Amino acid sequence: MHYVALVTVLALAEFIWFGILVSKARTRYGVPAPASTGNEMFERAFRVQMNTLEQLAVFLPALWIFAHYVSPYWAAGLGAVFIIGRAIYARSYVRDPSSRSLGFALTALPSIFMLVGILWAAVRTLLSTAG
Amino acid sequence: MHYVALVTVLALAEFIWFGILVSKARTRYGVPAPASTGNEMFERAFRVQMNTLEQLAVFLPALWIFAHYVSPYWAAGLGAVFIIGRAIYARSYVRDPSSRSLGFALTALPSIFMLVGILWAAVRTLLSTAG
Amino acid sequence: MHYVALVTVLALAEFIWFGILVSKARTRYGVPAPASTGNEMFERAFRVQMNTLEQLAVFLPALWIFAHYVSPYWAAGLGAVFIIGRAIYARSYVRDPSSRSLGFALTALPSIFMLVGILWAAVRTLLSTAG
Repeated sequence: MHYVALVTVLALAEFIWFGILVSKARTRYGVPAPASTGNEMFERAFRVQMNTLEQLAVFLPALWIFAHYVSPYWAAGLGAVFIIGRAIYARSYVRDPSSRSLGFALTALPSIFMLVGILWAAVRTLLSTAG
Repeated sequence: MHYVALVTVLALAEFIWFGILVSKARTRYGVPAPASTGNEMFERAFRVQMNTLEQLAVFLPALWIFAHYVSPYWAAGLGAVFIIGRAIYARSYVRDPSSRSLGFALTALPSIFMLVGILWAAVRTLLSTAG
Repeated sequence: MHYVALVTVLALAEFIWFGILVSKARTRYGVPAPASTGNEMFERAFRVQMNTLEQLAVFLPALWIFAHYVSPYWAAGLGAVFIIGRAIYARSYVRDPSSRSLGFALTALPSIFMLVGILWAAVRTLLSTAG
């Protein structure tokens, strides 16, 4: 589980980094709190952070349950894809929001893959216990 | 704990579904990223997703800690109420935001009930250890 | 781990409280759902809730992994700082958003401290296993 803990720390560090970029964008593009709209470039940085928050809400529970039920090594590997995918997502979103699909897919797919894996493992176990 | 894992997967799948609805609403109502305002119908779909994210942040930790300290079966049952409540919430919010109270209550109450249960179990254990 | 469970419940209760304040601000300042902009005072309450959600996404995983790998007592103590820091943050943000730095630091630093602690513990264990 050490690799899963490492992946979690790195994914959260990446999220903190996106938060720092939002904070810098506030100053650079003149969007003081509590506003979160008004400048296109600020909104890009802000949406990167918010979308990452949405994705983490699925990714982290999926990661730990999958590591427990299926495989911690596959979990860590899929987690590494997630972290790299998020970096690509952030980079492409800030340049041009319409080019965010690849990075988005590289973070959504590992989570969906792990959810399906958990579903398969849980249903199989429940059936074998019932049988 | 298999039922709790199943409930988690289903709640996350529901959240992913709400995200897909936001993505569809972006295209349908002409709200390209990074904007998240400008069309009432898009904003309804967007707020369903965001409110679900806020609720999941309370629900998932409450679910797992309650399952561990109190009862995994009650946790799974309350989790099922949450998932159905969110579906009602999403449906009524998109139709008319002022009608969202029932669905909201059906997701907030299971979480609050579980938090109170954890509090009760934790305080009781700490007191009995001290005694 | 009982103290860690207690800290989690209190942090989530605080977050629910911020949600109730947003709900009250909707009525008080006339910002009906699905809008989340249009009144400065509403936006302050709303940003307090959203920023707390962002912080919880880092804090809760960090809290539990740190409690497991490093120390549940330190985790609970740092968690208490987080909860108090968030209360200061909310109070100062609603009064004047530009005064939010102290409360922000008191919640960000415990999380970052715990992430560094996990990183240190995980790397050390991986190296000792490899050696």
